[in-house]
Amino acid sequence: MQVPAGTLLQRINSPADLKQLSEAQLEEVCRELRQYIIDVVSVNGGHFGASLGVVELTVALHYVLNTPYDQLVWDVGHQAYGHKILTGRRDEFHTNRILNGLSGFPKRGESIFDTFGVGHSSTSISAALGMAVASHYKGEDDRQHVAVIGDGAMTAGMAFEALNHAGIENSNLLVVLNDNNMAIDPNVGALKEYLTDITTSKSYNRFRDDIAYVLNKLSAVGPDAFKIAKKIEKSIKGTLLKQSNFFEALKFRYFGPIDGHDVKHLAKVLRDLRDIPGPKLLHCITVKGKGYALAEKDQTKWHAPGLFDKITGEIKKVVYDKPQPPKYQDVFGLSIIELAEQNPQIMGITPAMPSGCSLNLMMKAMPNRAFDVGIAEQHAVTFSAGLATQGLIPFCNIYSSFMQRAYDQVIHDVAIQNLNVVFCLDRAGFAGADGATHHGAYDLAYMRCIPNMTVSAPMNEEELRNLMYTAQLPGMGPFAIRYPRGNGVMIDWQRPFKAIPVGKGRKITDGEEIAILTIGAIGNEAVKAVGLLNQQGYYPAHYDLRFAKPLDAALLHEVFTNYTKVITVEDGCLQGGMGSAVLEWMADHKYNAEVMRLGIPDHIIEHGEQPELWAECGFDANGITAAVQQMGMVKQKHIIAS
Amino acid sequence: MQVPAGTLLQRINSPADLKQLSEAQLEEVCRELRQYIIDVVSVNGGHFGASLGVVELTVALHYVLNTPYDQLVWDVGHQAYGHKILTGRRDEFHTNRILNGLSGFPKRGESIFDTFGVGHSSTSISAALGMAVASHYKGEDDRQHVAVIGDGAMTAGMAFEALNHAGIENSNLLVVLNDNNMAIDPNVGALKEYLTDITTSKSYNRFRDDIAYVLNKLSAVGPDAFKIAKKIEKSIKGTLLKQSNFFEALKFRYFGPIDGHDVKHLAKVLRDLRDIPGPKLLHCITVKGKGYALAEKDQTKWHAPGLFDKITGEIKKVVYDKPQPPKYQDVFGLSIIELAEQNPQIMGITPAMPSGCSLNLMMKAMPNRAFDVGIAEQHAVTFSAGLATQGLIPFCNIYSSFMQRAYDQVIHDVAIQNLNVVFCLDRAGFAGADGATHHGAYDLAYMRCIPNMTVSAPMNEEELRNLMYTAQLPGMGPFAIRYPRGNGVMIDWQRPFKAIPVGKGRKITDGEEIAILTIGAIGNEAVKAVGLLNQQGYYPAHYDLRFAKPLDAALLHEVFTNYTKVITVEDGCLQGGMGSAVLEWMADHKYNAEVMRLGIPDHIIEHGEQPELWAECGFDANGITAAVQQMGMVKQKHIIAS
Repeated sequence: MQVPAGTLLQRINSPADLKQLSEAQLEEVCRELRQYIIDVVSVNGGHFGASLGVVELTVALHYVLNTPYDQLVWDVGHQAYGHKILTGRRDEFHTNRILNGLSGFPKRGESIFDTFGVGHSSTSISAALGMAVASHYKGEDDRQHVAVIGDGAMTAGMAFEALNHAGIENSNLLVVLNDNNMAIDPNVGALKEYLTDITTSKSYNRFRDDIAYVLNKLSAVGPDAFKIAKKIEKSIKGTLLKQSNFFEALKFRYFGPIDGHDVKHLAKVLRDLRDIPGPKLLHCITVKGKGYALAEKDQTKWHAPGLFDKITGEIKKVVYDKPQPPKYQDVFGLSIIELAEQNPQIMGITPAMPSGCSLNLMMKAMPNRAFDVGIAEQHAVTFSAGLATQGLIPFCNIYSSFMQRAYDQVIHDVAIQNLNVVFCLDRAGFAGADGATHHGAYDLAYMRCIPNMTVSAPMNEEELRNLMYTAQLPGMGPFAIRYPRGNGVMIDWQRPFKAIPVGKGRKITDGEEIAILTIGAIGNEAVKAVGLLNQQGYYPAHYDLRFAKPLDAALLHEVFTNYTKVITVEDGCLQGGMGSAVLEWMADHKYNAEVMRLGIPDHIIEHGEQPELWAECGFDANGITAAVQQMGMVKQKHIIAS
Repeated sequence: MQVPAGTLLQRINSPADLKQLSEAQLEEVCRELRQYIIDVVSVNGGHFGASLGVVELTVALHYVLNTPYDQLVWDVGHQAYGHKILTGRRDEFHTNRILNGLSGFPKRGESIFDTFGVGHSSTSISAALGMAVASHYKGEDDRQHVAVIGDGAMTAGMAFEALNHAGIENSNLLVVLNDNNMAIDPNVGALKEYLTDITTSKSYNRFRDDIAYVLNKLSAVGPDAFKIAKKIEKSIKGTLLKQSNFFEALKFRYFGPIDGHDVKHLAKVLRDLRDIPGPKLLHCITVKGKGYALAEKDQTKWHAPGLFDKITGEIKKVVYDKPQPPKYQDVFGLSIIELAEQNPQIMGITPAMPSGCSLNLMMKAMPNRAFDVGIAEQHAVTFSAGLATQGLIPFCNIYSSFMQRAYDQVIHDVAIQNLNVVFCLDRAGFAGADGATHHGAYDLAYMRCIPNMTVSAPMNEEELRNLMYTAQLPGMGPFAIRYPRGNGVMIDWQRPFKAIPVGKGRKITDGEEIAILTIGAIGNEAVKAVGLLNQQGYYPAHYDLRFAKPLDAALLHEVFTNYTKVITVEDGCLQGGMGSAVLEWMADHKYNAEVMRLGIPDHIIEHGEQPELWAECGFDANGITAAVQQMGMVKQKHIIAS
C-alpha cells in the first residue's frame, strides 16, 4: 500500500536533493523519514526497529558524503530502509520484500547507491576495506568508504578479521559503530559489556579530559609536582592511551561515543572525519526503534513485528477459528526442553537467534544449559564440539544459510572427530521474504558430502520431534536435521517421542509406474499433488526419504525394482542435493530409470512468499503434478485400493 | 628412523613420570626434549620451528597440570610434537606423518592426552571453553582447561568469537598466548603490532608499577598533592586499567608478557594461575625455532624444512639429473605476476599463506597489489569481493580445505553478486602427510552447488596458466580453479597464455566401449592407466572434463552416444562431486550408461603420501586399470590407430 511522504521527503529523489536542504531542515527530514518508515512498514510489514534507530545517521551520512562516489556499506541491511527511501526508492518502498518488489536488503542490482549486497551480518568492514584499497590503488584518494555496523554484528569473527587488516592499511575507511546494545535479541558477550563500560561509566574521552584537568591542577602545586605531572602525562600519552581503547589497540582512531540521534552533530562530526586519513571508528549510541515508544521498549518484538496499527501499536494477528499447526521453530524450542528434562546431557546453543529459533524457551527454563553465544556461528559449532568431547549432547541451532559460516567447523571440529553434535538447521529451503541471502538452498548438498554426517529432514512436526529424539540416542555422531521456516501441518503434534531408525524412509502412497521421492516438509506438496493426480486418474507412488544420508537402501531397491520413472523433490539446490544422491545410489546399484529432479535450479532466486517461490521453481503441488504428467504417466483405468 | 632419547626423557612415558622430577631437572628435560625433536625431525621430516618454540611451555604445562584430567588443547597443532613425546608417544614419534604412523597433529583417536583434534587454526579457545563449560555443568570445578594459541592464530575471527563468549562465562579457562610474531610466514595485522607494542615498549604491568611509584612520590609532596594523587589513582584503577588492555577489554584477566623459555618461571606462573577462577590469558613471548640457530633466523624456511643435516643445517634436497616439473603453487605464483603485468586490474590475496601458495613472489614484485591479510579466510574472500565491486580482479588463493572457512562469504558476498573473484584452491584433493584436516576433499561438491560459480581444475601446469588467464577475461563471474599440492608434469610449462572456453573439456584418447572421464591433475593417473591397459589390449577412451561446472555438453553427448560404460575419476569426494554432476547431466538428458565413480569415499582418510592415498581409494593408475577391467571391458583384437 502506497502512503504519502512528508513535504520535504517527497521532494527528495536522491541524496543530491537532500544536500539542497539547510542544516536547520535536517531534523524535519528525520521526522518525516521516521514517520514514512512507520507509515509504510505498519501496513506493508518488514524490519522496523533497526531502520528507526539509524534515521539521523542515514540522513547525516547522505548529507555529508558524496554518495554514490563515496561508498557506503550497510552491514546486514535491516537498517537500510531510510537509505533506500532517500536514494530514489521512496515510491517503490511499499513493494519491499514482496515478490518482484524491492529487496529487504541493500542489493547491487537495485541501485548504484547499494554498493554491496548484504543480509548476513558482519561483512561490511571487509567489503568497505576492499573498496578503499581499490580506490587508493586507482588514485582516487578523495573517495570516502564507510561501513555502518551494529554492535551485534561486531561480535562476529569476520568483523574482527577485517579490523585487524584495516588497522595496517592506510586506507580511507570509516567504520561507524551503531551501538544499540542489540542484535535481533539483546547483544551478548564481553565486547558488548566493554562498549557499555566506555559508554556509561567515565568515557574514554572524558577520562582524557579528567587527566588533563588533574595534571593541570597538579602543576600548580609546585615545581616538583609539575615534573611528576609531566612524567605521568608522558606515560599516559606514550603508552596507556594508545592501548586504552579496544579499537585503538587495533590501530583504528577511535572517536566517540556520540549521540546517534543528534543529526546536526552527526553531520558535523562526519564532516570533520572526512579530512582524517586512515582507519577511523566512530562510536554512535543509538536506540533501536527510536521514535516509536513501543519499539524502543520491546526491541526484540519490534525487530520485525509484522503489520500493526501505528496509533494503538496493536500488532495485527490473523485470527483463526480453529487451532493452527505450530511453527517448526517452536516445535524445536519446546521439544528440546522435553528432551533435556529426560536427558541431562543435552545442551542448547544458538548464535544470536534465540527468538528466531525459539531456543529462548530453553534459555528461560534451563539457563545453565542453553547458550546464546553471539553472532558467532564458527564459535557456536566448535564450542558445541568442545561440549561433545565431554559426553554432552549439544543441539546447535543455526539457520541453514548461516550454517555456511561454520562449514569448516562442521567438517574439521565435528565430523572428522565423529562427535555427537546435533545441527538443527532452521529456515532450510526457501526462506521467503528475506530472499537470496537467506534461502537455505545448499545444505543438503554441502552436508551430504561430509563423512560421518547424518542428513535428515522431517516432513512434519512429529518427525522433527522424533528426529531430535533419535539424534540424542547413544552411539550417534554428527546429525543434521533441516526444517523450514514457518508452520507445520499438524495440530496434535506433541506426541510421545519415538526413535526413527537412521536412514529409514517411509512409503506414503503406493502407486504405479511413477514414484515420487521427497525429503522434508516439501513432501506435503507431493501429497497434495498425488491427491490432485488421483482425481485425474493418475496414481503415482510417493515415498518420504527422511534421510538424504544415509539413504534407505531397502526403500530404493523397492522403488527402482517397481518403477521405471522417478521424480525427486526437494526444497534445496538440484546440484548435489538429494536427487543427486539418489542418482549416485542408482548408478552404484546399476539400476536404470528415468529420473526427473525437482528442486531449486542453478541460479539465484530472489525473495517472495515460500509458495510463490516453490511455484516459480516448479516444485509446489502444481509443479509436481505437471512433472508427473510431463513424464508421460499413463492414466489408469482402475482405482488403486486406498 | 628411531633415534635415542636423553637419559631423563627416555624414562618419561607419561606426564606422571615428568612430575616425579624436581624443578631443578626441568631445564635438563627441556634440553633433551629439544634435542630429541631436532634429532627425529632432521631425519624424518615434519614441522620444526613451532615445536622448538614451545618446549619449555610444553614441559611446564604437563609438569603443573593434571593432564589428561585437566584439558589441554593445542591450537593448529604444529607445535605439539613435544606434547606427543611426553605423553607416551616418544618411541613412535619417528612414524610421524607417515602412512599408518602418528598424525602430525593432536588427534583424539591417538591418545587420551589429545583432547581435541586440530590442524586448522584458531579452534582451541572455542573447544576449551566448551570443555570448561561442560566441567562446570558437571560440577568438576577443580578441572583446568587450557588453550595454547599462537599470535598468528589469534588473528582469525573465530578466536575473537570465542574470547567474546568466554569473557562472560565464568569458566575455568586459561588461554596461553604463544606470541612469537609468526604464523608460518611473519604474522600480520594490527593485533600483532599491538602485541609487539605491549611487549617491547613499556608493558602494561610495568606501567602499572610506574604509576604506583609516581603516585607514591607525589603523595610525599604534600596534602594537596596527596589528594590529587588519590584522584588519579582512582581514575586509573576505576576506568582506564580495565580498558587498557585488549584482552581485559574482553573481560579476560591478562597476565604477562613473560619469557616463554624460562621453564621454572613458567611452572610457577601456571601454578599461580590454577587458583584464579574465570577466564585468564597468559601472554608468553617465545621464539619460533628456539634453540636451533638457523631456525631462529629464518623462521618461515624452518617451519617445515624437510630433512636436514642437524649439524651443518643443510636442508637435504633430492638432486635430479634433469629438470623437474615445477610445483603447482609456483606456477600460480609466477603466472599471476605475468598476468598482473598485462592486466592492471589483477590483485593477489592470501590469508597468511604467502610462502605456501607462492603469492610471496607477487608480494615482493608488486607490493601494492598483493595482500597477506592474516589467518582470516572469511575476510580474505569478502575483501576480495569489495575489490571486485570496483572493477578489480582479485585472485584469492586459499587452500581447498581452508576455503571451507569462507564458504558463506563465497556464496553470500561473491556468488550472489556474481562478482569476478578468482578462487585459486591450492592443495585440492589429498594433501598428503598433513592428513584428514588438510585434504581438499570437498571443494568440487561444495563449490558446484553454488549458482554463478565456474568450477575448474587443470590437468597440468599449462592448463593452470590458461585457466588463470581465462578467469580474468572480461565478462567472467566467480571462478574457482582447484589444483593439487606438489609438482606438475611439464618441464616446458611457461607457454603463452591461451583462453580456454568456459565449460570446454577435451578428448585425450579415443577408445572403445569404456570412456574414462577425469577432472584435474588426477587425469595423469588415467593417462598412465590407459597406457597400462593398451599394453594389455584394452582401449578405453579418456576425456579431461576440465570443468565440473559448467559441464561440456558436447563432450558428454559424444561420450554417452558412443560409450555404454563410463568411469569418472576425481581427487575429491564421491558425494556430490564431478561424477555426481555427470550423473545429473545424464539423467537430465535421458541417457543410460553404466557409470562407475572413482574418488574419495565417504569416510575420513588419514595421512600418507598422495600416491599412497590415491591407491588406498582405488583411483591411482592401478585402481583405474582395475576399474576398467572390473567393468568388464572386452579385450580388443585390433589396435586403434594411435
